[in-house]
Amino acid sequence: MTDLLWPGDHRAGHLFSDTAWLTAMVRVENAWLGVLVDAGIAPASARADLTATITAADVEPVAVAADATGNPVPGLVALLRERTGGEPARWVHRGLTSQDVVDTALMVCLREALDRLHGEIVAQVRRLAELAETYRDSPMLARTLTQPALPTTVGMKVAHWLGGVLDAADSLTALPALPVQAGGAVGTLAAATELAGSPGEAVTLSQRLAAALGLTDSPPWHTTRSVLTRVGDALVTCCDAWGHIAGDVAIGSRAEIGELAEGRGGGSSTMAHKNNPVLSILIRRAALVVPSLAAALHVASAVGVDERSDGGWHAEWATLRTLCRHTVVAAAQTTELLAGVVIDTDRAAANLAAAGDLLAEQRSMTELTGRTARPDYTGAADHLIDAVLKRAHHTTEAT
Amino acid sequence: MTDLLWPGDHRAGHLFSDTAWLTAMVRVENAWLGVLVDAGIAPASARADLTATITAADVEPVAVAADATGNPVPGLVALLRERTGGEPARWVHRGLTSQDVVDTALMVCLREALDRLHGEIVAQVRRLAELAETYRDSPMLARTLTQPALPTTVGMKVAHWLGGVLDAADSLTALPALPVQAGGAVGTLAAATELAGSPGEAVTLSQRLAAALGLTDSPPWHTTRSVLTRVGDALVTCCDAWGHIAGDVAIGSRAEIGELAEGRGGGSSTMAHKNNPVLSILIRRAALVVPSLAAALHVASAVGVDERSDGGWHAEWATLRTLCRHTVVAAAQTTELLAGVVIDTDRAAANLAAAGDLLAEQRSMTELTGRTARPDYTGAADHLIDAVLKRAHHTTEAT
Amino acid sequence: MTDLLWPGDHRAGHLFSDTAWLTAMVRVENAWLGVLVDAGIAPASARADLTATITAADVEPVAVAADATGNPVPGLVALLRERTGGEPARWVHRGLTSQDVVDTALMVCLREALDRLHGEIVAQVRRLAELAETYRDSPMLARTLTQPALPTTVGMKVAHWLGGVLDAADSLTALPALPVQAGGAVGTLAAATELAGSPGEAVTLSQRLAAALGLTDSPPWHTTRSVLTRVGDALVTCCDAWGHIAGDVAIGSRAEIGELAEGRGGGSSTMAHKNNPVLSILIRRAALVVPSLAAALHVASAVGVDERSDGGWHAEWATLRTLCRHTVVAAAQTTELLAGVVIDTDRAAANLAAAGDLLAEQRSMTELTGRTARPDYTGAADHLIDAVLKRAHHTTEAT
Amino acid sequence: MTDLLWPGDHRAGHLFSDTAWLTAMVRVENAWLGVLVDAGIAPASARADLTATITAADVEPVAVAADATGNPVPGLVALLRERTGGEPARWVHRGLTSQDVVDTALMVCLREALDRLHGEIVAQVRRLAELAETYRDSPMLARTLTQPALPTTVGMKVAHWLGGVLDAADSLTALPALPVQAGGAVGTLAAATELAGSPGEAVTLSQRLAAALGLTDSPPWHTTRSVLTRVGDALVTCCDAWGHIAGDVAIGSRAEIGELAEGRGGGSSTMAHKNNPVLSILIRRAALVVPSLAAALHVASAVGVDERSDGGWHAEWATLRTLCRHTVVAAAQTTELLAGVVIDTDRAAANLAAAGDLLAEQRSMTELTGRTARPDYTGAADHLIDAVLKRAHHTTEAT
Repeated sequence: MTDLLWPGDHRAGHLFSDTAWLTAMVRVENAWLGVLVDAGIAPASARADLTATITAADVEPVAVAADATGNPVPGLVALLRERTGGEPARWVHRGLTSQDVVDTALMVCLREALDRLHGEIVAQVRRLAELAETYRDSPMLARTLTQPALPTTVGMKVAHWLGGVLDAADSLTALPALPVQAGGAVGTLAAATELAGSPGEAVTLSQRLAAALGLTDSPPWHTTRSVLTRVGDALVTCCDAWGHIAGDVAIGSRAEIGELAEGRGGGSSTMAHKNNPVLSILIRRAALVVPSLAAALHVASAVGVDERSDGGWHAEWATLRTLCRHTVVAAAQTTELLAGVVIDTDRAAANLAAAGDLLAEQRSMTELTGRTARPDYTGAADHLIDAVLKRAHHTTEAT
Repeated sequence: MTDLLWPGDHRAGHLFSDTAWLTAMVRVENAWLGVLVDAGIAPASARADLTATITAADVEPVAVAADATGNPVPGLVALLRERTGGEPARWVHRGLTSQDVVDTALMVCLREALDRLHGEIVAQVRRLAELAETYRDSPMLARTLTQPALPTTVGMKVAHWLGGVLDAADSLTALPALPVQAGGAVGTLAAATELAGSPGEAVTLSQRLAAALGLTDSPPWHTTRSVLTRVGDALVTCCDAWGHIAGDVAIGSRAEIGELAEGRGGGSSTMAHKNNPVLSILIRRAALVVPSLAAALHVASAVGVDERSDGGWHAEWATLRTLCRHTVVAAAQTTELLAGVVIDTDRAAANLAAAGDLLAEQRSMTELTGRTARPDYTGAADHLIDAVLKRAHHTTEAT
Repeated sequence: MTDLLWPGDHRAGHLFSDTAWLTAMVRVENAWLGVLVDAGIAPASARADLTATITAADVEPVAVAADATGNPVPGLVALLRERTGGEPARWVHRGLTSQDVVDTALMVCLREALDRLHGEIVAQVRRLAELAETYRDSPMLARTLTQPALPTTVGMKVAHWLGGVLDAADSLTALPALPVQAGGAVGTLAAATELAGSPGEAVTLSQRLAAALGLTDSPPWHTTRSVLTRVGDALVTCCDAWGHIAGDVAIGSRAEIGELAEGRGGGSSTMAHKNNPVLSILIRRAALVVPSLAAALHVASAVGVDERSDGGWHAEWATLRTLCRHTVVAAAQTTELLAGVVIDTDRAAANLAAAGDLLAEQRSMTELTGRTARPDYTGAADHLIDAVLKRAHHTTEAT
Repeated sequence: MTDLLWPGDHRAGHLFSDTAWLTAMVRVENAWLGVLVDAGIAPASARADLTATITAADVEPVAVAADATGNPVPGLVALLRERTGGEPARWVHRGLTSQDVVDTALMVCLREALDRLHGEIVAQVRRLAELAETYRDSPMLARTLTQPALPTTVGMKVAHWLGGVLDAADSLTALPALPVQAGGAVGTLAAATELAGSPGEAVTLSQRLAAALGLTDSPPWHTTRSVLTRVGDALVTCCDAWGHIAGDVAIGSRAEIGELAEGRGGGSSTMAHKNNPVLSILIRRAALVVPSLAAALHVASAVGVDERSDGGWHAEWATLRTLCRHTVVAAAQTTELLAGVVIDTDRAAANLAAAGDLLAEQRSMTELTGRTARPDYTGAADHLIDAVLKRAHHTTEAT
């Protein structure tokens, strides 16, 4: 999958592509059919490998049919019945509602997105820890409100980037486990109860579906949508952290500053001398856009009513897909950016020197204490770097 | 083009598809090459039909290459040079910058979107005018803050919908004409001036490019992006108006109210009796999402710096595409909704009757004036309907 | 504090009012001064009760002065020095930077907001648990996509509301503890290190400040802002849950449906018969607005650069204030809404009966299983209600 | 009015303050009462100067009362009746609904905001035109994607800023005239028709109210809200343009670049050497936040239903107020920024020189044309500056 209007989109591969989503929905139907057979509710003859019956060529007709029903499941179920016939056709989808299939398939795709993010973040944390250690003592100018402020070190700056990424990783870790959705038409498991013979056994079916798909069991969440909004918020939190790094690199790579450069800069269609910080620019791009997508998920959640929402639910799917792909692409670009980032410690030192006398604050302090000024004025930088490295180690060890 | 996660997306056809956008960019390069030859700058032997050299199969490699340069133009230009060779290869893209090609191609695609919206809106205005006339005198309950308020007529309600659509149409009409972008690398027309021999002749090249593509000439707008944000805002304004109609239909089609229904309701994957207001739901979906997309365009515009922005520009393309497709799909769904909407005047009258005594306000008025109460209490409804019909007539006549 | 343009705003009391925020900043300066004295860095004569020196009358001049420096701290510090004189004036603010004071004061105000939310949520959970139990068996029509779907019970609907509130409560619980900010001018604790004599002792000062204010110690987070965005996201998550409840009440209180009503409806300025679901409307209002505010916090975070951001930081304060006040007001209104909500079980049963035959799905199931249909078709509703009540009990017990 | 959390807020004065809004609502009631008397509907004895009966002390009780009714009008009307008594009390508000008063008062306040913006923009255009002329020939480095690109001139850069401001001004000019709202309880002018005796005369009352308040007459727009969203979008468009300028100044004032500086920079609470570009930072702050506010207005509009919306309407007021104040403050700060901006042409020239060989593109061009290269490579900059100056002249002349 590529997107000519979002350079780098192919880095997200098939994540949440139409085919991936169709496949995920079929996996849900397949797992449910298996659960029904395993529970002795459907006969053994109802077992079928539904995933083998659907191909990428089915995407278009299912998509077109979804316009008439508002979601792709009725069209997909009709297709599955037509393709399988017999007992499988009789039993497929029994006990589920469209929203069960859509929501659980969203979780299946989301898990892939979260797995990919986890891998990227671990790589970023390792690389940032390495950079913080390497440049621990390299002097650099700290800037506040764009202006020269005080001395710091490159390692301290990197440690702040690392802290931001670790914070974002924490927001992913704090997410509840991804839940299955198997509440039936109105979230009461009515059909499943009928099939299973009792409420308790109906709930067991939901648990088995969750287990089959590697999800967590959950009561129905048809119109309580924090499952999605919380994931969305955490994805944005990651992009915020990367946007901050990318912004620093973009500024640091300005010719007049020259402290930072991308390992592989991008060329121009007409100016041969250009070495553009393309990764930083594309990461920033994502960081500017994704907050809006998460906000749309919240609005969709907030206007939810009844036992299935009249538009709020439908607003989520494509929005979540775009949010996930943008985030995964930005993750990969950030990993690459950090792997290749070139730090010019000479320029950093020179810019610090050129900033002139920055030590008025230090003099005020020594005047107050009567003590001799410390040799540099980087305070607890070393100490703070150690602290974040320890935190980073804990994160990468846990992997 | 279909999108399995946005049912109805195929209604937008190829609008802003990857292929459509690649084609639009090639059209820009082609038109510029023609302008250079026509002006006697490039030799006649440089003329080529670039559009014939590119196919849908080129989308993927150009998209992948765009990751390295941050935009698809360098890859596309390399391909065009490779495919044409000789004088065309020597002259293609000379005088332009990547942003010229991307921005002008955006305008080409936007124009198609605006044309399609215009057609849908004219159809909607005609249909709404018809409905307002037909149901001018059908009594109906007006509701405020969800509660029964006063009598109105179905025609008056429709007239308010029509007023909203006409207001939205006005916001499209108020847009400036879509401009060409041909400022060269930094918006000074430096290369074009060199090629043409003088600034005045360079500007003439820009004018000719605009004419060739049916756009308006403009000074460069590389980092002044209200061109895009204003279109985005107008699209959202349209979706707002449709969202309002869809919301009224969704509520009016609740079983307990029963005044409105979609001509072709959607079925359920498991409940045979369902007749869901699918179009209304899908329109509402768009109305909930698009404000966020326009906000992202504004943020992208607001953080613009330098002579080409470091991420703001790149954030626009896919966001604008999604916004356009969602809007065009919602437009088509609204036209269909209005074409088929079923109005149950008996239920409307019955609901009004069941609301009990609504005329306390009227009694206060007659007590004040000492006059006899007017026979109904629909005030100037008739008058207001006439006014909006006149306005509608003016709009559809102008077409 | 009242806001004539946001009815109900006074429910938030002085939370984050200008005076409250000025007071919070003074508390931070005061606590820091105490820490310096307690650590033996500043002399005992530097101790002063700064909070006694500032009054509400100082808000305006400090606010006006903030325009010139970009934040209120320089003006406040000047005032504190002027008011105290002598050793306190010499020592106040030493080792801190403006951002330390602003950010820590934000945390002080945020804690109050979170405390208030916690109290409201516990009350809501208790009330919802009570309602779910009371109406456990009251038959009701479940609706999907606005249309009659299947039977459910009032208790089941309330249990879904409760589940949503518990999910939102979980998002608050998952927040990291609120951190102090005491990094000094560029986040290296340079001045504090100078004052304390060593990095380790500087960090100890930060820890003591945290302890004095009931916050958690933290490395500096001047440009890693997930602290704020995560709180913002959790507040929106709460409003989403309340928006869902309010939406259901607003619809359920439509005259034609009549299943739900607010205990104390609002009147009209002109229509005596109106009984408007005012609380629901005002809660929905908040739910529509707050996602945008949280998105603005993310954008501000994402564009952060350097050791203090050039606008991103400044965008947060008022946005966070508005977000907090809107959320706390919506919380209080939801608690009141739930306390007073009137459920008309007769109308609920009548609407279910009027919906006609909803049991085609059940017949499909019994046809498949060959078993007798269960007497009602509410599936595992009872079971699911028990599960959420258990979860609710756990939450309120923990209080 | 000050806002300690939004430095500079006092620049907006009383615009949309609680008092200003209360006053505006009273002005609407007062004008309507006058219209009723002038039309001979109410007796001469009903005439009263309502504006004299209300003071700032009434804000708080009216605000608190608004919580129970959802809007401040019932409380205000009760107060006006209590204060006036007799015939005025009998006639005040007759024929209006709460929404008429709120919406028309919003227009009264909006007009003040738009007037203030107009004045600021004219001042900005004049100043920018002056700067473009003054620095027309000062060489400067153009940057794209943060990197050195080609030569340009300071005048050309300023001309692009000016073009952006003129575009934003156009978006204000394209707004429809601000309308009155006087539709009565459900937008049919039912009560007014009863009072006036006929629909035509009722409409005349609406026209007279419009005239009395300097607004435009309009059919009711209770749930067609593009009036507000279009204003909101235009305000954001202005902030975008200023955000772009502020971003350029913030970057240009970095020590390593040093081409631009604010005339009056801001100091630091602890670092004496700082000269922060405070105005630029505060302008950027607004530009980051306002897109979200306009998006919230669109969401509120899109979910509108019935003859008065159940939350969408209420979401607008405070959001619009914040949007207006932020915009007016940013306008004033931009005017001040431009008035004082210091341009260091030596540094600009030096940075250009230091960028090395930028003329590869020019050599490609001369190679193609066989002509001698033009002496500089600033293309049509002079020509483009003239064009925008002409456009600016047209704008300021029209004032």
